[in-house]
Amino acid sequence: MNKGTLIGIGVGPGDPELMTLKAVRMIRENKIMAIPGKSAGETVAYSIALQAVPELKNKTILPLHLPMARDMDRLAKSHQRAAAIIEAHLAQGENVVFLTLGDPSVYSTFSYIRKLVSEDGYTTETVSGITSFCAAAAAANISLGGREESIHIFPAAYEKALEFEGGNTRIFMKSGKRMRQIKEMLRDKKKEVTMVENCGMENEKIYRSLDDIPDESGYFSVIIARDQECSF
Amino acid sequence: MNKGTLIGIGVGPGDPELMTLKAVRMIRENKIMAIPGKSAGETVAYSIALQAVPELKNKTILPLHLPMARDMDRLAKSHQRAAAIIEAHLAQGENVVFLTLGDPSVYSTFSYIRKLVSEDGYTTETVSGITSFCAAAAAANISLGGREESIHIFPAAYEKALEFEGGNTRIFMKSGKRMRQIKEMLRDKKKEVTMVENCGMENEKIYRSLDDIPDESGYFSVIIARDQECSF
Repeated sequence: MNKGTLIGIGVGPGDPELMTLKAVRMIRENKIMAIPGKSAGETVAYSIALQAVPELKNKTILPLHLPMARDMDRLAKSHQRAAAIIEAHLAQGENVVFLTLGDPSVYSTFSYIRKLVSEDGYTTETVSGITSFCAAAAAANISLGGREESIHIFPAAYEKALEFEGGNTRIFMKSGKRMRQIKEMLRDKKKEVTMVENCGMENEKIYRSLDDIPDESGYFSVIIARDQECSF
Repeated sequence: MNKGTLIGIGVGPGDPELMTLKAVRMIRENKIMAIPGKSAGETVAYSIALQAVPELKNKTILPLHLPMARDMDRLAKSHQRAAAIIEAHLAQGENVVFLTLGDPSVYSTFSYIRKLVSEDGYTTETVSGITSFCAAAAAANISLGGREESIHIFPAAYEKALEFEGGNTRIFMKSGKRMRQIKEMLRDKKKEVTMVENCGMENEKIYRSLDDIPDESGYFSVIIARDQECSF
C-alpha cells in the first residue's frame, strides 16, 4: 500500500482571504487535518482556514498538543507524540494536512514535526503562506526593504536581538513581552518604527512612532524598524 | 468625484496557485492593471496572474517602463513617469491594480511608486504575496529558522552581504551574478547551503550542497544558508 504524505500548509497571518489558492485546494482535496491545538475551536490556524473553506468542518481533525515550552525535553517529547499520531494515518495511506499560522518555513512547529516524519521514511510537502511580517508591512503600507537594504528578522526567543548592530530593516516577531526593552534600544538607533498588533484580525492596531507603542502588548505583535534615510 | 485607489498586489514567486484569494478577487473586481514591463506578454507578474485569473486578458493594461537601472536619476525619473500614468486614472475615480512578483513589501518597485502616489494625495493599499524565499524553502522542504534563530535577508545590490557576521540563517536573493563569491564566503562558515533556481516555474532546480551549485546562475536564484547544528 502506498503511504500518505504529510502536507504542511500556511494559512497566513489572520485574514482568511490571504490564504493561497493552493492551500484552499489542498484542504478541500484531503480528509485529515492536523491542527496545533487542543481543539479545533481553540486553534487560530483552524479558525482562519474555516472562514475561507467552510468544508473544513466536515474533516477529521487531529488535535496535537504542542505546548510552547522552554524545556527542550518536553518540547521534543510533544513533537515525537505529534509525529506518531500523524504517522499512524500516513502508514494507512492517508494524507495528513497540517495547518499552520503564517508560513510553515518561518518559526513554525511544523518544521520539527516534518523532520521527524521525514526521518521515519514518509514523504512531506510544504505549501507557503503569507508571513506575519509581510502582512504587517502591507497593513501599515510600508516597505520592508528597497534594493540595497538588508532585512533582519528576530524572534522573541533570540536572546541577542537587542545587541545586534548593522544592516538596515529589523523585524521583531512575537515581541509583546519584550516591548519595553526593544523600544529603549531602538530609541538610540534613529530608526523609523512601526508596530502592528493582531494584524489582519478584528482588533488590528497600527502604531507609527516609538512614543505611541505601549510597553506591553499581545503575542501577535510585529515591530518593523527601518532606517530613516532609506525609508519609503 | 471620488478618487481611485492604487492597489499593489503580490502575485507570488511563480506558481499561480500561490496567489492569495484576495489577489484573485482584487484583479476580478477592478478594470485597470498596471504591470512592470513593456508589454503584458513580456511581464512575469502578468503571466503568473493570467494563469490563475483568465479574465485578466479582458482588462485595460498600463505597461510601465521600469528599468532596473543603477543610475539613481534614471530610476527616479522612471518611477515619476509611472506614478503620473497611474495618477491619470486615479484622478478620474478609477482604481489601479499594480501587479508585482513575490510580495509588494519586499524589494519591490511598487514601494517607490506607492510613495510618490501617496505624496500626491491618493489612497494606496497593499495585498501581500508569497515571497520567493518562503517558496524556495517550501520547495526544498527546509525551515528558514526555528524559535531561537535569526533570519537575515540580503538582496544582490547589498554590497556588504559578503562581510556580514553573526546571526543564523542567511538568505541571498537574486544572487545569480555573485554566486561564485557567495559560495566562497559560505565555504568557510560551516553553513548548510541550499540554492533554488526558478522556484515554482517549469525549470525549477534545487541544489543541496555548495559543490553542486554552479558558479553562475539566473536572476531568479535564492540561496539559503543555515547553521549546521540548528538545521531541521
